[in-house]
Amino acid sequence: MSTKLTRKYIDDLKSHLDERNDSDALAMMEELHPADIAGIYESLSLEEATHLYLLLDPEKASDVLVELEEDDREAFLKALPSEVIASQFIDHMESDDAADVIGDLTEDKKQEVLLHIDDVEQAGDIVDLLSYDEDTAGGLMAKELIRVNENWGVATCIREMRKQAEDLDEIYYIYVVSDENVLLGILSLKALLLASASTRVKDIYAAEVRSVQTDTDSEEVAQIMEKYDLIVLPVTDSIGRLMGRITIDDVVDVIRDEAEKDYQLASGITTDVETTDSPARLSRARLPWLIIGLLGGIVVAAVIGRFEEDIQINPEMAFFIPLIAAMAGNVGIQSSAIIVQGIASNSLGLESTYRKLGKELIVSLMNGIILSGILFLYNYFISHNLALTFTVSTSLFVVIIFAALFGTLIPLLLDRVKIDPALATGPFITTMNDIMGLFIYFLMGRILYDIFI
Amino acid sequence: MSTKLTRKYIDDLKSHLDERNDSDALAMMEELHPADIAGIYESLSLEEATHLYLLLDPEKASDVLVELEEDDREAFLKALPSEVIASQFIDHMESDDAADVIGDLTEDKKQEVLLHIDDVEQAGDIVDLLSYDEDTAGGLMAKELIRVNENWGVATCIREMRKQAEDLDEIYYIYVVSDENVLLGILSLKALLLASASTRVKDIYAAEVRSVQTDTDSEEVAQIMEKYDLIVLPVTDSIGRLMGRITIDDVVDVIRDEAEKDYQLASGITTDVETTDSPARLSRARLPWLIIGLLGGIVVAAVIGRFEEDIQINPEMAFFIPLIAAMAGNVGIQSSAIIVQGIASNSLGLESTYRKLGKELIVSLMNGIILSGILFLYNYFISHNLALTFTVSTSLFVVIIFAALFGTLIPLLLDRVKIDPALATGPFITTMNDIMGLFIYFLMGRILYDIFI
Repeated sequence: MSTKLTRKYIDDLKSHLDERNDSDALAMMEELHPADIAGIYESLSLEEATHLYLLLDPEKASDVLVELEEDDREAFLKALPSEVIASQFIDHMESDDAADVIGDLTEDKKQEVLLHIDDVEQAGDIVDLLSYDEDTAGGLMAKELIRVNENWGVATCIREMRKQAEDLDEIYYIYVVSDENVLLGILSLKALLLASASTRVKDIYAAEVRSVQTDTDSEEVAQIMEKYDLIVLPVTDSIGRLMGRITIDDVVDVIRDEAEKDYQLASGITTDVETTDSPARLSRARLPWLIIGLLGGIVVAAVIGRFEEDIQINPEMAFFIPLIAAMAGNVGIQSSAIIVQGIASNSLGLESTYRKLGKELIVSLMNGIILSGILFLYNYFISHNLALTFTVSTSLFVVIIFAALFGTLIPLLLDRVKIDPALATGPFITTMNDIMGLFIYFLMGRILYDIFI
Repeated sequence: MSTKLTRKYIDDLKSHLDERNDSDALAMMEELHPADIAGIYESLSLEEATHLYLLLDPEKASDVLVELEEDDREAFLKALPSEVIASQFIDHMESDDAADVIGDLTEDKKQEVLLHIDDVEQAGDIVDLLSYDEDTAGGLMAKELIRVNENWGVATCIREMRKQAEDLDEIYYIYVVSDENVLLGILSLKALLLASASTRVKDIYAAEVRSVQTDTDSEEVAQIMEKYDLIVLPVTDSIGRLMGRITIDDVVDVIRDEAEKDYQLASGITTDVETTDSPARLSRARLPWLIIGLLGGIVVAAVIGRFEEDIQINPEMAFFIPLIAAMAGNVGIQSSAIIVQGIASNSLGLESTYRKLGKELIVSLMNGIILSGILFLYNYFISHNLALTFTVSTSLFVVIIFAALFGTLIPLLLDRVKIDPALATGPFITTMNDIMGLFIYFLMGRILYDIFI
């Protein structure tokens, strides 16, 4: 179905653009989806991209612009005059996309572009949408929708719908409102299709409709749409008046972004980066956690420093430092990852914190016994040093239990004080557990070496 | 909108069920969405759940069953006779859900249930769907759809659609096929709504339609639907005949599962688990990676063991073992996480492997200089041990570069040999980098201590 975007294809396109061979360049774009054209952006110079986008039919060019990565779009629009942005792009977008694009502009440019929009209704919709926080239902919604009055007959309904449908790419639901624009329910296309012409809307619509308010958090919107398998979700104001609707494709981005953010945080990356970003940006995104890790390592060095004598007498204690540190980190990350995911997908269930900790204790006791057992056998048969054998495996057991409890408790506590629990995973918890784990290890060593020697 | 599922609400429900107070129990279920009813499952005994589900209207009960977690559903169905499964549940489901539910039964029970399905067409659809691999478009699709012939007029079209629409929850698209059932395009409801009665289908349908084949991988299906913002995607066989359609709600699950799987693998958890699972299951899911980590730790111990004399002479070398190990792990995970995400979201772009490695080299050189610099200053002013100062910061620099290159290269290599690159992140790469990092550290130590002392 989709043309493979090979290196050769892009080189051909670039040479058409550079030679101002417009018709051939356009012909190459003919069968490409806007998302595919957006995918080429990074291979083009700013000049080539500008030339290409202004060649395209404005409808298609606007779709391409919407599909661009946010920072690419900002860079691209910076070079264009406000009237061109308004007439070639914004005029042809649905209100939610238009608001997203305009929202990223500088304050001055935003005003200029808004003044250059021909359709006053469209400009008004965009201004309304810009007033909502990006991470709320209001920030996600579009104003275009099909709205019918409960008192209309099916014939009036279809006539009005034809009028309203012109602004819409596709119709999924028809919303039924009262005279005061209060959302009453939905009229499915199926019901409309099966109804006779004399029926009234109030007799065939479904009064049950799930909706959110403009200030509902976008992650909650995603959870609701996912849980109830919704394709479109209407948005109301605080007194129930219909303000807009959110479609699932916008929410899929929220779901993926959320999952990726957790994963990146767990991997110690602070801002959203991709392989195609510049080295400086990639470096900046990673340095904060690495510096925390480094400082943690310095603290650990100071902790071990207090046991310098023990190491000098029993240098074999040092051999197992990385094992204890790594296991403390691994166990802690596992425990916190399960909690973080549970919080993210809202599937923690009704278990209380105490029950969760109790369960985690059982899991870590089981794992602790098995892992310490393996390590005990290894050292018992290989090293023949009884003090070392007991120290290493006892410490591992204690460390596993502590790490599991910390790993469970910390994200739950963070969530309670409204800090993103995903922060708990990754380098942060690893470093904490390293410090705690090695302190336990050397303390155990001091006690057990006294007993066995 | 949704009733808060409090502990009290559930206790009330349980007492109604236990006292066989059916009408009150049903009244409590009245306003709940099937997904909410499914959410209560874990709080009910098997007996209570069975009683409740058979009380419900079969349409609703089937929706609840579809919303249950897979292992809960398996446990629930194990206790029910095949005829009840067929008549109370399967008969009322769309074909894709029915196939998913039946697919999880044992081979014997599967046959029994299929024989008890009243609607032969439904049974046939399910058998067809069961033949596809779960992780392909065939495994995701449903057979129910609205199909019209290109030669029909709008009136015939609407009449036929009314007939076909009975099997469907909602209509999103109408597919246009040839006499041989080859998919030709889509007819939007909007076009149909705006057309006059005398128009023919072939004059108003859109011939451009994106489709996949039954054997397309489900992750590719998710990528296509996400990239092109599709709500429904038709599925054809290898010669283009229309076989079924996939809706976005099924694909949202694929997207979330995929993102969660990567995150769990990175956190060292092998199978899909949730906080509500049993301790034994939670323990089993985590042990494999922990054992790998443990074995890695033992190898590291052996590596350090070769430098026992060095540690005895310079015990301060041991202080920085955790720092070197942790930084090697952190850097490696960061590098591999970016690659793994790029592969997952198909956004790696057209850069070659060499360019990626080159860029990663630049990033790690930048980070390496900054981090080693900080560590150098710390040791220079605090420890006053020049040999240690140079050893630790030089090793850190070298280790950061090696870890970054490994972290980039390994997931790319795994992807090339068709192994899930997410395996590279988490405990695996941490352990590898620990071994490599500490070997470099002690080797450096031996060289630099000779120079400085």
